[in-house]
Amino acid sequence: MLDQSTICAISTSPGVGAIAVIRLSGSDAVVVADKVFQSPKKDKKLAGQQPNTLHFGQILSNHEIIDEVVVALFRAPHSFTGEDIVEISCHGSVFIQQKILEVMIENGARMALPGEFTQRAFLNGKMDLSQAEAVADVIASSNAAAHKLAMNQMRGGFSKEINDLREQLLHFTAMIELELDFSEEDVEFADRTELRKLTVKIETLLRKLKKSFHLGNAIKNGIPVAIVGETNVGKSTLLNALLNEDKAIVSDIHGTTRDVIEDVVNIHGTAFRFFDTAGLRETTDHIETLGIERTYNKLDLAAVVLLVVDTQNPYPIVFERINKIRKRLSSDQKLIIVANKIDAGIQETIQQLEILDLTDDEKLVFIAAKQKKHLDELIDLMIHSVNIEAAAHEDVIVTNARHYEILKNAHEAIIRVLTGLDSGITGDFLAQDIRECLHYLGEITGEITTHEVLGHIFKNFCIGK
Amino acid sequence: MLDQSTICAISTSPGVGAIAVIRLSGSDAVVVADKVFQSPKKDKKLAGQQPNTLHFGQILSNHEIIDEVVVALFRAPHSFTGEDIVEISCHGSVFIQQKILEVMIENGARMALPGEFTQRAFLNGKMDLSQAEAVADVIASSNAAAHKLAMNQMRGGFSKEINDLREQLLHFTAMIELELDFSEEDVEFADRTELRKLTVKIETLLRKLKKSFHLGNAIKNGIPVAIVGETNVGKSTLLNALLNEDKAIVSDIHGTTRDVIEDVVNIHGTAFRFFDTAGLRETTDHIETLGIERTYNKLDLAAVVLLVVDTQNPYPIVFERINKIRKRLSSDQKLIIVANKIDAGIQETIQQLEILDLTDDEKLVFIAAKQKKHLDELIDLMIHSVNIEAAAHEDVIVTNARHYEILKNAHEAIIRVLTGLDSGITGDFLAQDIRECLHYLGEITGEITTHEVLGHIFKNFCIGK
Repeated sequence: MLDQSTICAISTSPGVGAIAVIRLSGSDAVVVADKVFQSPKKDKKLAGQQPNTLHFGQILSNHEIIDEVVVALFRAPHSFTGEDIVEISCHGSVFIQQKILEVMIENGARMALPGEFTQRAFLNGKMDLSQAEAVADVIASSNAAAHKLAMNQMRGGFSKEINDLREQLLHFTAMIELELDFSEEDVEFADRTELRKLTVKIETLLRKLKKSFHLGNAIKNGIPVAIVGETNVGKSTLLNALLNEDKAIVSDIHGTTRDVIEDVVNIHGTAFRFFDTAGLRETTDHIETLGIERTYNKLDLAAVVLLVVDTQNPYPIVFERINKIRKRLSSDQKLIIVANKIDAGIQETIQQLEILDLTDDEKLVFIAAKQKKHLDELIDLMIHSVNIEAAAHEDVIVTNARHYEILKNAHEAIIRVLTGLDSGITGDFLAQDIRECLHYLGEITGEITTHEVLGHIFKNFCIGK
Repeated sequence: MLDQSTICAISTSPGVGAIAVIRLSGSDAVVVADKVFQSPKKDKKLAGQQPNTLHFGQILSNHEIIDEVVVALFRAPHSFTGEDIVEISCHGSVFIQQKILEVMIENGARMALPGEFTQRAFLNGKMDLSQAEAVADVIASSNAAAHKLAMNQMRGGFSKEINDLREQLLHFTAMIELELDFSEEDVEFADRTELRKLTVKIETLLRKLKKSFHLGNAIKNGIPVAIVGETNVGKSTLLNALLNEDKAIVSDIHGTTRDVIEDVVNIHGTAFRFFDTAGLRETTDHIETLGIERTYNKLDLAAVVLLVVDTQNPYPIVFERINKIRKRLSSDQKLIIVANKIDAGIQETIQQLEILDLTDDEKLVFIAAKQKKHLDELIDLMIHSVNIEAAAHEDVIVTNARHYEILKNAHEAIIRVLTGLDSGITGDFLAQDIRECLHYLGEITGEITTHEVLGHIFKNFCIGK
């Protein structure tokens, strides 16, 4: 199954830099490198060198010097891929990078496929599948919260939880299957009360994990925020003010569940994804006729809804808008009522808003978007509304759509176990549902996997990873 | 004079990659790195490790893991800068790169200035100034010929020639100055005939070097090619066909003597710079009234002039065009007469062109630009017209505008020496001109230099080099 061929790729960001790194991995990595590398000590070969050492020399092509380089030598199994690795640090001209790659290929290496280095690390047991997937997330993470989650997952945080679950389930199965062996004697090795407790515990955990994807995905791809409100209440002004708040507009998010995005902005280390609510805007004059499927969907995708109201309007009108939006939102969504234009607002409206009854999922903030007043308060509310900070301290948050799909399946299976236990079905049916759940969890860590799944996972990696 | 502070920068190309490298250099490089690097063996410190070794571990910031990294350790003086260097290979997320840089700066390093690593390499005697300058050229080189010249210079090819010259001149001065010590005795230690021979030899060499800049600059920045001709002869069609010939349009040339450029294209490993001859085009209907200064200048800048003529025109008209352009060109310029539209050309015109008398600096090629016929022949002529191949075998070609300016000054000084010798001026005057020449040559290799000159050279480098 294991492909032993030697692969190579440029592993640093494409383009001109002071230096660039070309990576070779495979059983012949050192042999290939030795064919083109020449040390100032003419008879020195990389093959004879200690692992984890650096060597200065030249890369030659038909006796012509391509570059002066430093070569890093790693030996199997103590390398990223678990294979022999040679990393060549060259001058970062595009010409040199490509030339060295060419020379490697001429001398027996082949171009690496996307994610092939990481895939080999997985296949060689250097990391499990969820860790391998996290490598791509670590590289793509563009804000502190996403980085922390991805690092956590890459370092095995997620796998540990899944493995704990699997172990508990395996224990469970072992007992049930022991019963099956003695089925004619009608014994119960597995105390049904204890089993039920365990099943409930596992179900709770799976539900929690499944639920965490909502937040995990928000952290990874940006917290989805919809800005809604009537025309002329200052939505665009507010959006522009927020976009300017932190300059780093992130354009290159490698996400899983992408949607039409207006802008992704890092604000104080948290990514927010502002939805294009054009559909909503067009129809806000007739919010009662809002029943356009597409617009509903947009609103449904938001974790946070910023409802902008104009304090220049009489309170009854404002209150009506608030209630209409309230009715549309699900229990997962947070509503922030943004009372705008307070500089010129009606006192009565402002006073009434101040004493408005709010649920735990609702916040109210007074701003003047045009004058950029109190925007910090709004941003604080946005950041706290999704509790990113608490999330960052949480060990296990699912950020990966594949894991989420699997967890959903595993959760359904464990629910069947629970129902089965309650209705007193026989051990063999129980065992089957438990094995199914075990199978799903194995798919996350890669203990159970197929070429197809691997292909799907790694094809989204860059070449060189 | 030497700044011992520890500097740091991202040395790989900006942006997201599989990996990125952050480089630390300075007397405290290892100390700074040890503050934030943690090996899996808790008590292992980089300070205690062998030079030229690789170490796996984590970069921490306030006990939080920023990334899992591999650290390369180089010890003074055996490093690029001649100082202690720590290179950190991290995952190539922009977030991680910036975070590691921040952590380094928090722990005592400072952000490197543009080219500061290379400048330190020069100041620490790891390379001379012309070699340091070549580092930037190596990184910027985007075609085989420019790469070869830059590599040659970085490896000291140019310096060797200059140093040989200086040695010969020093010998010269020594003898003259010996004479001055004994001036009252009216001796001649330096045989004037021998001196003259040497001076002529040096003058020839300086002239050759000076002249080589024309070609060197063309190779480095692209051979300047002007496409001229009447309207409707097919200039635009030809240009487009040539631009498509090799897809790699080079947009990021770090040149010295830039001009308005239409396109720089690598064709078979050679860069060609096609001039915007709009000025010429506009006036080609009245080529006799061409006397617009700007257009003349454009034509003067071309090393190769492609004169496109339409074989559908009667020969006398075509011949008149050719002669008009011939008169405009200097002896340095190559003319390629491109007889276009041969598919529909007048037989008489084609036959007459075939027997046209050509000088050594002129070539003729028949093409059909629209049908892309015989373009290869034209490209061959273009490549051979400037003799790139011969140039690539030549050891010393000046590509650097600063060197060219200095060589011009040195050449003027040696001419004064020669004139002085011929007119029999006294030794002290001779010595003065020779010392001047020596001074100039020292400026190239950096033996004589000022902060100002260094500042000017390195400010054009990228940060991280």
